[in-house]
Amino acid sequence: MKRYERFADEISELIRSGVLAPGERVPSVRQASRHYGISPSTVFQAYYLLENQGLIVARPRSGYFVREQAQRLLNEPEMNPCVQETADIAVSELVFSVLGSLQDSDTVPFGSAFPGPELFPLPRLARSMTKGLRALPADAIIADMTAGDPDLRRQIALRYRLTGVHLTPQELVITNGAMEALNLGFQCVTSPGDLVAIESPAFYASLQVLERLKLRAVEIPVHPREGIDLEALAESLARHPIKACWFMSHLQNPLGASLSDAKKQALYALLKQHQVPLIEDDVYAELYFGTTPPTPVKHYDDEGLVIHCGSFSKCLAPGYRVGWVAGGRYAESISRLKLMTTISPSVPAQVAIADYLQHGGYDRHLRRLRYALETQQGHMLDAAARYFPAGTRATRPSGGYFLWFEFPRQVDSLRLFHMAREQGISIAPGPIFSATQGYRHCARLSYGHPWTPRSEEAMALLGRLLASF
Amino acid sequence: MKRYERFADEISELIRSGVLAPGERVPSVRQASRHYGISPSTVFQAYYLLENQGLIVARPRSGYFVREQAQRLLNEPEMNPCVQETADIAVSELVFSVLGSLQDSDTVPFGSAFPGPELFPLPRLARSMTKGLRALPADAIIADMTAGDPDLRRQIALRYRLTGVHLTPQELVITNGAMEALNLGFQCVTSPGDLVAIESPAFYASLQVLERLKLRAVEIPVHPREGIDLEALAESLARHPIKACWFMSHLQNPLGASLSDAKKQALYALLKQHQVPLIEDDVYAELYFGTTPPTPVKHYDDEGLVIHCGSFSKCLAPGYRVGWVAGGRYAESISRLKLMTTISPSVPAQVAIADYLQHGGYDRHLRRLRYALETQQGHMLDAAARYFPAGTRATRPSGGYFLWFEFPRQVDSLRLFHMAREQGISIAPGPIFSATQGYRHCARLSYGHPWTPRSEEAMALLGRLLASF
Repeated sequence: MKRYERFADEISELIRSGVLAPGERVPSVRQASRHYGISPSTVFQAYYLLENQGLIVARPRSGYFVREQAQRLLNEPEMNPCVQETADIAVSELVFSVLGSLQDSDTVPFGSAFPGPELFPLPRLARSMTKGLRALPADAIIADMTAGDPDLRRQIALRYRLTGVHLTPQELVITNGAMEALNLGFQCVTSPGDLVAIESPAFYASLQVLERLKLRAVEIPVHPREGIDLEALAESLARHPIKACWFMSHLQNPLGASLSDAKKQALYALLKQHQVPLIEDDVYAELYFGTTPPTPVKHYDDEGLVIHCGSFSKCLAPGYRVGWVAGGRYAESISRLKLMTTISPSVPAQVAIADYLQHGGYDRHLRRLRYALETQQGHMLDAAARYFPAGTRATRPSGGYFLWFEFPRQVDSLRLFHMAREQGISIAPGPIFSATQGYRHCARLSYGHPWTPRSEEAMALLGRLLASF
Repeated sequence: MKRYERFADEISELIRSGVLAPGERVPSVRQASRHYGISPSTVFQAYYLLENQGLIVARPRSGYFVREQAQRLLNEPEMNPCVQETADIAVSELVFSVLGSLQDSDTVPFGSAFPGPELFPLPRLARSMTKGLRALPADAIIADMTAGDPDLRRQIALRYRLTGVHLTPQELVITNGAMEALNLGFQCVTSPGDLVAIESPAFYASLQVLERLKLRAVEIPVHPREGIDLEALAESLARHPIKACWFMSHLQNPLGASLSDAKKQALYALLKQHQVPLIEDDVYAELYFGTTPPTPVKHYDDEGLVIHCGSFSKCLAPGYRVGWVAGGRYAESISRLKLMTTISPSVPAQVAIADYLQHGGYDRHLRRLRYALETQQGHMLDAAARYFPAGTRATRPSGGYFLWFEFPRQVDSLRLFHMAREQGISIAPGPIFSATQGYRHCARLSYGHPWTPRSEEAMALLGRLLASF
């Protein structure tokens, strides 16, 4: 990270944490330069970046100020307080129709599940592929199928260390993206008809997995910033025979909520008390905007109860389909289940990523990616504040690439979805994030693609559609 | 194919079909040269190849003769006549212990499920990977996930044409190898508790899939050369509510049996009458030893009842994990099920194979591979005839890389498996090929690896172990 980026980060933390209040003056260029021991031009560069991110504004002849809505350009959505139990989940039709809307490459991809491809080091990965395949002994192409590429498993185990998790490469099973990891984890600890706890709103794919495996769901409310409601969970665990939980501890999809360390610890204690395994979906782990990597619930796991699922699909190599699962006490069963379903993910893709992790400059890429996403978040929030109707609420997550919007009650996001689609804009309407198809006046919008004048126009158009309700 | 190879193929067909009987003289070099309009040196090259394959022998000053046991060095195994129904399949423990024995790269891999890696054009594929990735537009790495690489689907549809099957690329779903294709197909047409028809002996992975999906099996006897017993199948279909069939119409694993065209047609008529879908596992389709590609049952399918599964793992690119399914009327459901479980196979692997199919010389590679396998089959049969005890029976399949041995009754192949493993040799014991763990005196041996003096020693050692029973 460059010096000006580091400095911008510090100021951004001060704003996000409320130390610098909205409307307050940020240190002048001279003060900052003296206080932090950096050159005035570095301070200028940092302030320029923060301005782009929508966090500060320049006032002529007065200096820079924290933007009035810097902390929350729009109000925060409210938490849906109800715990709901659902027997028959049938969300797939709706999800497939939404996914179908993304197929047209001309669409403004606010509904997309992936960041823009231009944000990934694809040419560098291709070089790693060439190099990795050249170095691969012929018999490894067959031998590596069972357990996964040994270099890759070592590299992943190393990255876990950075987040405070100590595990051996043997606990890791390489999978076809996190989706397979999550499927295997769930199959391992449940049988058809079982009850499992999920978040509300929940990532739609988790609903599809439940539907496919014929599981019943208890939906636990998620606070838009602080994450899962632990009291509601404790009550549900006491009342129902819950067999497993599927939670995202960081940058929950769609809300972007992250659990504090204390809350993670309390969550683990609760699950341990009930001996209920946690499937921890942590695919956005690398996309935090702060300066320190978050610690997963897995860190507190002293009984092998947490099945931690990760992936390179959202942070490095979409389309390569390489994910993994650290399965705790279930690792062996998961590995066998994988052999019976897909045998192995593609060996060349594993080899390429293993080489890249060693030589490609992964951390440099991640820093760039995080900056790009943070800047894009600023643009989208800014546009939403300008174009969306009064009463609209929005999250402002500290990472990832999704915003969750709560529109005025009269908005029907399914109708909005169809209207927007007609105009060449995709969105992810609220009902796909719930087994009971709630959240009708909500939607998830992605800022994962570079911001262009077209994005701006699309936001304005969405604003006009919203006003028509 | 070179001229001498083409000529050798013709003679080999004459021998296999019995037109040239064991002990009979093959045309003299002069006759053959005149009759076929080829040079004497071409004839010599062909006869040298046939000698290597164990089909003919040279007698000094008399010319070349069809080897006494050329058609069948050992007697053909007998067909197990019983249809068996099994409620609880639990074969996995055994299968995993056998697969575990293959992990040590020092083992003589007679138990292996893959041919030797040196038989595949891995460096050429790596070049196709580099080229393919360079040409791939950035957004394709995300867009291609849903449906699969369009070039690859076109190329696969083209290859179907060669076998008389006309289908559109839209019917094809690219999968993580055939294993995922078979899993998806089965999940699509069955529910837990359903009864399905499989072969006996059956490929162990099909038993694992049934175990995982909690299906019950009717095992239909397979003739070692002519394939599935249609009468037994007809009876079972009339008597039981069978929901689906999983059959291999060519080079059935483990027997190597292939259905004649007439039998395939009759099989399809039977299934159509009962409206029972066929999951046609056709992963060895490209490994036929003759001159014409076999036609799958799918060719006769006028109602979309056949779910045809193929793969590049056994014939081109092991470890790349690229297979496909032509799902007939189930194509759309299969595609959705895939999106819910693994989303997509690795895009780079698809791109590499698509480029290779267009520019890599696939047919040339396949001809070389088939010759290598045919030659290796000759060596293994020859060694078995020399080292294995009297009364041993063996198949002589017209393709693939597996022999099925039926040993004298007192042999316990599970004990043989453990004894051989101690000596650094892997085999696939009979009981892993049956839900009822029958075939205790049988084993599958692979000749998929280049034949070496070590292979010869291993066969001699197996012979001694067999004699000890």
